[in-house]
Amino acid sequence: MENLDFEDRRDELFSKLENKQYRSLKLTLCDMNEYDIAAFFEELDPSQLAMVFRMLSKEQAAEVFANLEVQEQECIINSVTDAELGSIIEELYVDDAVDMMEELPANVVKRVMRTATPETRNLINQFLKYPENSAGSIMTAEFVDLKKYMNVRESIARIRRIGEDKETIYTCFVTSADRKLEGIVTVKDLLLSDDESIIEDIMDTRVICAKTTDDQEEVSALISDYDMLVVPIVDMESRLVGIVTVDDVIDVLEQEATEDIEKMAAILPSDRPYMRSSVWELWKNRIPWLLLLMISATFTGMIITSFESALAAQVALTAFIPMLMDTGGNTGSQASVTIIRALSLGDVEFRDVLRVIWKEIRVALLCGVVLAVVSFGKILLVDRLLLGNDSITVFVALTVTLTLVITVLCAKFVGCTLPMLAQRLGFDPAVMASPLITTIVDAVALLVYFAVAKLLLGV
Amino acid sequence: MENLDFEDRRDELFSKLENKQYRSLKLTLCDMNEYDIAAFFEELDPSQLAMVFRMLSKEQAAEVFANLEVQEQECIINSVTDAELGSIIEELYVDDAVDMMEELPANVVKRVMRTATPETRNLINQFLKYPENSAGSIMTAEFVDLKKYMNVRESIARIRRIGEDKETIYTCFVTSADRKLEGIVTVKDLLLSDDESIIEDIMDTRVICAKTTDDQEEVSALISDYDMLVVPIVDMESRLVGIVTVDDVIDVLEQEATEDIEKMAAILPSDRPYMRSSVWELWKNRIPWLLLLMISATFTGMIITSFESALAAQVALTAFIPMLMDTGGNTGSQASVTIIRALSLGDVEFRDVLRVIWKEIRVALLCGVVLAVVSFGKILLVDRLLLGNDSITVFVALTVTLTLVITVLCAKFVGCTLPMLAQRLGFDPAVMASPLITTIVDAVALLVYFAVAKLLLGV
Repeated sequence: MENLDFEDRRDELFSKLENKQYRSLKLTLCDMNEYDIAAFFEELDPSQLAMVFRMLSKEQAAEVFANLEVQEQECIINSVTDAELGSIIEELYVDDAVDMMEELPANVVKRVMRTATPETRNLINQFLKYPENSAGSIMTAEFVDLKKYMNVRESIARIRRIGEDKETIYTCFVTSADRKLEGIVTVKDLLLSDDESIIEDIMDTRVICAKTTDDQEEVSALISDYDMLVVPIVDMESRLVGIVTVDDVIDVLEQEATEDIEKMAAILPSDRPYMRSSVWELWKNRIPWLLLLMISATFTGMIITSFESALAAQVALTAFIPMLMDTGGNTGSQASVTIIRALSLGDVEFRDVLRVIWKEIRVALLCGVVLAVVSFGKILLVDRLLLGNDSITVFVALTVTLTLVITVLCAKFVGCTLPMLAQRLGFDPAVMASPLITTIVDAVALLVYFAVAKLLLGV
Repeated sequence: MENLDFEDRRDELFSKLENKQYRSLKLTLCDMNEYDIAAFFEELDPSQLAMVFRMLSKEQAAEVFANLEVQEQECIINSVTDAELGSIIEELYVDDAVDMMEELPANVVKRVMRTATPETRNLINQFLKYPENSAGSIMTAEFVDLKKYMNVRESIARIRRIGEDKETIYTCFVTSADRKLEGIVTVKDLLLSDDESIIEDIMDTRVICAKTTDDQEEVSALISDYDMLVVPIVDMESRLVGIVTVDDVIDVLEQEATEDIEKMAAILPSDRPYMRSSVWELWKNRIPWLLLLMISATFTGMIITSFESALAAQVALTAFIPMLMDTGGNTGSQASVTIIRALSLGDVEFRDVLRVIWKEIRVALLCGVVLAVVSFGKILLVDRLLLGNDSITVFVALTVTLTLVITVLCAKFVGCTLPMLAQRLGFDPAVMASPLITTIVDAVALLVYFAVAKLLLGV
């Protein structure tokens, strides 16, 4: 018993390919997991890919195909016959076929559609109509349906008969004559019941389901909260139209986390892995926020300009500007990122806003005081005594530390309220993350700084 | 068929509780999902909690208990008899029991251990020894094991006999006499095979498994990459000791994403939801990085101090400092956050470092040129013409824009290389995220700024 993944076999595979040991290569592929085969295929050039793909058995071929990125899928589609293509398409689950169709160029889509059977073609067309990121767009149609008057023996017989091509057999769906979802029954329930028990008596009617138009995030929240393996998806008339399985939800969770992280770093969300994104795509996703933030940072510059005379009178003040701005930005983004993540995990809701603010204010006070004490000591001991900079007086130190405390308070307040407000107003809270907060807090820090300086130093 | 979650029933539940309609409350709870009951319980005060918990049936009780946070678990443990406690503990899966033990106070742990059966006690003790965040620490022991000489009928009979208490029955594990893992067989395989088929002939020997000492992230990567429902966990002698199921992995994925996001925002990772973290805990997780970054930001201040005379000669230069620092920080954190996420998803590895740098440099050039053109125009049109600031000459504008291009290049370079280097050296790349990069890039931006100013303006 052993599992060698693609990395373990890389050298072996490529040496067989180069030495034209095709029979031996075929045997090795037979022994590999479809996921690892796909990883191998993605490193081949198009002509090799088309040749090696034909070494796979029919069953392996469809599963490997589903695991490939769309570029490789296109390359294979262009190199197989219509008959071969048709059989690959029939073997694919609808959700994988739909994912692929959404990204293939139009002429390739046409050829794929032409080779599919009319039933498959209709199903794909219908699924393609669901809005992006909706439950409908990620569901698949291959589920086991039972009737409530069946008994356990009949149900198991039905699973044995139709189970082969289903994405999951472990949860079966009990539907009425007009396809309304009436309950669910698991294979565990079936195996642990008597052969003669009637489905109606053992099925669970407390069905948790989602609508085709629900966002995919809602589906993944259901699976993650209720520890489910599959969520049934119903249409507006409560008819069962598809299922979303836990493995698709894991992809959704990773994708949503990536999107949140990107938005927090002022990047427009991308849908391709980094190494497959072109320079142009990366640029397009990054430049809008950079421009916006650069323009808004000029307001900070204007604040400095308008206090030029104060800075000229007390040159020592300029040196502390970066520290005040950075610390304000860091404290603000700590608060905003914490709240954005809590909102997206459902730990915090808008009605908690007052409790959140009260909590952040106390945290801000604790942080502010510690930072102030450390920086007061550091300014007097290091900057004044050690480096002998006489222009740094106790009043300058007081100005800096008082500004620090007020800035930290403002930063935590802005950092926790803006994401909650954004969500309340129907925007994505992740957009209110670090960079935007930083820009706002920069301006606040400077305004506070010059106000305090005026008060304490009379500049 | 309908599913009302806790939010839908909130008013109903609380009004029944307040009006002492306990019989009706009990009926409503009977009809609810264990996850929703747990959500309800977490809003009760301790005396209510103890009373309402006793309304649950024995089967519901253990599952609701497993879904509670440790504070509520402790409260219930303190209010039930030893016999009741014993039966709850026996009903829990080992992984849930171990999670709880790790957080309960020592005296409560003692009482729990005393009421458990010797077998359960031994199992819990053994599981508690695995290091935090290892596969061993999240696995559970309730799996179905089969022998390779059994046939399908015998196997299904065994599942029916012992399946009730297993965390999953859908994947069964074929073990040798000395408990070595020899293969896996799914219930789907069993149902789709003849009753007389021998397990050895239908089992899959290409078993993907993890070691007890592997990090939980490796286990979740296996489940997410290979679309598995369960990963077997083996000890150093390849003996099967436990399993990790997909629902636990979803929790791990969410927890790891949260940790990465926290680290990127200069927060030490926390293990409690926001609303349950005390002010003190939040402060402890946030202050270390704030202090470190504040101290390092003083170097930026020192750079400014050392160029005080240059700034005095060309006062207009000061106003652009925030814009240059912010833009540098934003471009740098875009690169670092993208690379950190790609590293954690496995899209990028260290051997890609040169390709990544080359890609980032081209993106940086595109971004830098666009930002420079926009800011050159803005400085001359808005700052000089519109606002009539005559100290802003074409050379000042050139100084700012040239600095911008060089800073963006440096920022993208630093942003993409530091996380990859960190991972190569065995550190967590997430620590190299925005705040640290920002501090480094700030210093770089200022040094470049003053060097360019010296060159172009001769200050």
